[in-house]
Amino acid sequence: MTIRVTVWGENVHEQQVPLVASIYPQGLHGALAAALNADPGISATTATLQEPEHGLTDARLAATDVLTWWGHAAHGEVADAVVERVQRRVLDGMGLIVLHSGHHSKIFKRLMGTSCDLSWREAGERERLWFCNPGHAIVRGLPGTHLDIEQEEMYGEPFGIPNPDEVVLLSWFQGGEAFRSGVTYRRGAGKIFYFRPGHEAYPTYHHPLVQQLLRNAVAWARPEGGAYPAGCPHVPAEKALEPLVVRGGSVH
Amino acid sequence: MTIRVTVWGENVHEQQVPLVASIYPQGLHGALAAALNADPGISATTATLQEPEHGLTDARLAATDVLTWWGHAAHGEVADAVVERVQRRVLDGMGLIVLHSGHHSKIFKRLMGTSCDLSWREAGERERLWFCNPGHAIVRGLPGTHLDIEQEEMYGEPFGIPNPDEVVLLSWFQGGEAFRSGVTYRRGAGKIFYFRPGHEAYPTYHHPLVQQLLRNAVAWARPEGGAYPAGCPHVPAEKALEPLVVRGGSVH
Amino acid sequence: MTIRVTVWGENVHEQQVPLVASIYPQGLHGALAAALNADPGISATTATLQEPEHGLTDARLAATDVLTWWGHAAHGEVADAVVERVQRRVLDGMGLIVLHSGHHSKIFKRLMGTSCDLSWREAGERERLWFCNPGHAIVRGLPGTHLDIEQEEMYGEPFGIPNPDEVVLLSWFQGGEAFRSGVTYRRGAGKIFYFRPGHEAYPTYHHPLVQQLLRNAVAWARPEGGAYPAGCPHVPAEKALEPLVVRGGSVH
Amino acid sequence: MTIRVTVWGENVHEQQVPLVASIYPQGLHGALAAALNADPGISATTATLQEPEHGLTDARLAATDVLTWWGHAAHGEVADAVVERVQRRVLDGMGLIVLHSGHHSKIFKRLMGTSCDLSWREAGERERLWFCNPGHAIVRGLPGTHLDIEQEEMYGEPFGIPNPDEVVLLSWFQGGEAFRSGVTYRRGAGKIFYFRPGHEAYPTYHHPLVQQLLRNAVAWARPEGGAYPAGCPHVPAEKALEPLVVRGGSVH
Repeated sequence: MTIRVTVWGENVHEQQVPLVASIYPQGLHGALAAALNADPGISATTATLQEPEHGLTDARLAATDVLTWWGHAAHGEVADAVVERVQRRVLDGMGLIVLHSGHHSKIFKRLMGTSCDLSWREAGERERLWFCNPGHAIVRGLPGTHLDIEQEEMYGEPFGIPNPDEVVLLSWFQGGEAFRSGVTYRRGAGKIFYFRPGHEAYPTYHHPLVQQLLRNAVAWARPEGGAYPAGCPHVPAEKALEPLVVRGGSVH
Repeated sequence: MTIRVTVWGENVHEQQVPLVASIYPQGLHGALAAALNADPGISATTATLQEPEHGLTDARLAATDVLTWWGHAAHGEVADAVVERVQRRVLDGMGLIVLHSGHHSKIFKRLMGTSCDLSWREAGERERLWFCNPGHAIVRGLPGTHLDIEQEEMYGEPFGIPNPDEVVLLSWFQGGEAFRSGVTYRRGAGKIFYFRPGHEAYPTYHHPLVQQLLRNAVAWARPEGGAYPAGCPHVPAEKALEPLVVRGGSVH
Repeated sequence: MTIRVTVWGENVHEQQVPLVASIYPQGLHGALAAALNADPGISATTATLQEPEHGLTDARLAATDVLTWWGHAAHGEVADAVVERVQRRVLDGMGLIVLHSGHHSKIFKRLMGTSCDLSWREAGERERLWFCNPGHAIVRGLPGTHLDIEQEEMYGEPFGIPNPDEVVLLSWFQGGEAFRSGVTYRRGAGKIFYFRPGHEAYPTYHHPLVQQLLRNAVAWARPEGGAYPAGCPHVPAEKALEPLVVRGGSVH
Repeated sequence: MTIRVTVWGENVHEQQVPLVASIYPQGLHGALAAALNADPGISATTATLQEPEHGLTDARLAATDVLTWWGHAAHGEVADAVVERVQRRVLDGMGLIVLHSGHHSKIFKRLMGTSCDLSWREAGERERLWFCNPGHAIVRGLPGTHLDIEQEEMYGEPFGIPNPDEVVLLSWFQGGEAFRSGVTYRRGAGKIFYFRPGHEAYPTYHHPLVQQLLRNAVAWARPEGGAYPAGCPHVPAEKALEPLVVRGGSVH
């Protein structure tokens, strides 16, 4: 069954910085969607900040199995109502892949409950991503035990995130830092993967192995079960699964 | 070194419902503070919704090692600015113990990133809390492997929380439900414990073993290390820990 | 792609206790294999203690995607060499589903590193399994939020297992206990699911929803990535990924 | 209350390799014990492979709150009976700190249930340990956000361990690797910390900050609660906490 992916792009640097536009003529979102669509089992389309409701209407989200999120310069312009809507949809089972500077997006910070702070440096240095568990679906089929990206921005620890369910990738940086670059979480029925690389000044998302890893991540993150019951259902005493005699006082 | 605890109470039921006032003449917060102060290593004071800034000024929080939180009827009246302040202080290392209906407080939902939904029933039924790990600090010194509370409100699964770092307590309810009633998390430098029991219509917080467990939880939750660096520090290339030559384009 | 399952059965009670033979004329393993084979995507065969090498040769394990394990009376008769072989295969990616009294099997204790102790009672009491996360693949398609088994053996906490990666199921027992009845782990490249129900004196594995849950668990546990590198590879200094000048003493 | 630490040393390299003897004239165990005893709240003594029962009798272990373990050349010479005894004591609450090449010790592999494999290189390269959570007790009081060790052996991912409860430290290596160098687990009532640095050819355990970190780790790992019940207690139906009528067949 085809996995329906919405690739969300902030689409600001691509419009304002010629360097970025030259690397990603179709935008980062365009490049990512094309990379995902190389898998016949994936059907990826894009949505951007500039569209009404940022392209993320209830209907669009309801038809999305996995959402990917890249943002950087305009986190503050994302409407809170849309963030809340995306959060609800994740809790209902939609997968979410947060990319690079999306670590500081409203939606990631809201789902983590933490600062998501880190240190950073833009020096075009080498990043090497080590696979902590070669058996994980997210690194399926990748050769060897690591993946090199010749030029990347550095992100350094401490990374202000909750203890991950799994640490899948660790980065080594030329300038001396290490980082938890691929981490997974469940929030409600939804699966979340944070993937560190993807600075807009470098061609990271054109890297064939990065593309393969992201296709893997999409397959991993697709909804796998049912939805949560809505709200806090009241179970009256007379409908208790075991017979009960009500005792004591009540405030309800 | 004395652990400074602030016991936060919503203080609404105690003022409006004679039954609750009769069980907790000093308020739930008053009873909880007294129970904690029975340990000479703890110095507990109270703060309530009705005080200016709900009693949780920056100065007060800075002088608090562990905050306990009980609320139910008035979650919506807690000012967002105070919630944000408490969250920041937790990330900086303050422990947080969320009690019973506090599962739906703004602060808990914000730190969890999930719905925190559950099912419920008020029937004065028996609850039995099983200790998943008798070696955990939170159940230190409690006799046997479980703790009975003769009358409690029921909370049922699914409980909409992230995978806990540890499940310390499981509840059995007379009416047929089971529940993860004692769960731990770290958020930033802060330690969080959610403890299920404590319905205002029953004398749960007068139970000597519940009181002992909460004193244990306070000791467990106290700050144990340093604080996070503030914000996202930039590490210029010329200050990299390993020598770096800047390469490639830049958007900064 | 068909999932190849080997259903391992101790096959002792079925031969010695008429009650068990009458409930499971083809053995517990036979009933389980039939239940799994109801899914056209699964191809399940059986292996038993009494076969040479307990039916678990290297060749058989190499051709197994997921192994299920039921044992009780004869844990001690399982050859250590076979246990080690199964462990190695799990670390290489084979899924493992440990059933009921398999909690005390050599293979489960070896993979957990703990006692796997629990308390128990055989009284034919009602067990109700609550779904902690309705979005989990293992409860996919099951109706509602819990599953009742009218007659089961009781297992009680504390259950001597490591903190699970996920707690998927909680049990409520008529006699007053609660239990972590469905828990997941990764060990190496392999995924492990422990499922509590399945006492041989009751027809648990004939329950349609238990069967569906086990088919789900098989799909969840199948290998999803690659294998670990064998042993501890030496990386000579002259083959380091970054240029290195050897410094200091050496003991190698 | 003083924490009673037993520092276990394999004590082979120190006797056979002059380089190691020159760095650690009192043995690695001697240096470690001295470093720990610098804290007045710790009372550390040593035990070695060559002593009867490797110095780890039942009485000695019963009087040990935290055991540290350094071994490398002679893992195979540690008696299985002693390994089992240490495991039992950890499950009963004794803390365990496994150091460096102890990753391949019998006791660590037994408690993890995995291969504990990794890659390695002895080139005297620089290692930098990053603090993932500055709020963790294990890095309490350490300055800044990382700790440099000028010369160390390299250990590389994939590291064949279970998903840790917490990743406290990440290492960066000069030669291009990253590694989960400080990880925590609970096994039974016991707390476990694996700490990567400590190659015998370099003076790592003379580093003041490494010593401080290890003192912190000892304080973190000390027993914090009670012990598990022994074995699998039977709860007869007539002693069930809730009234039960026995139904159905029985095999017991």
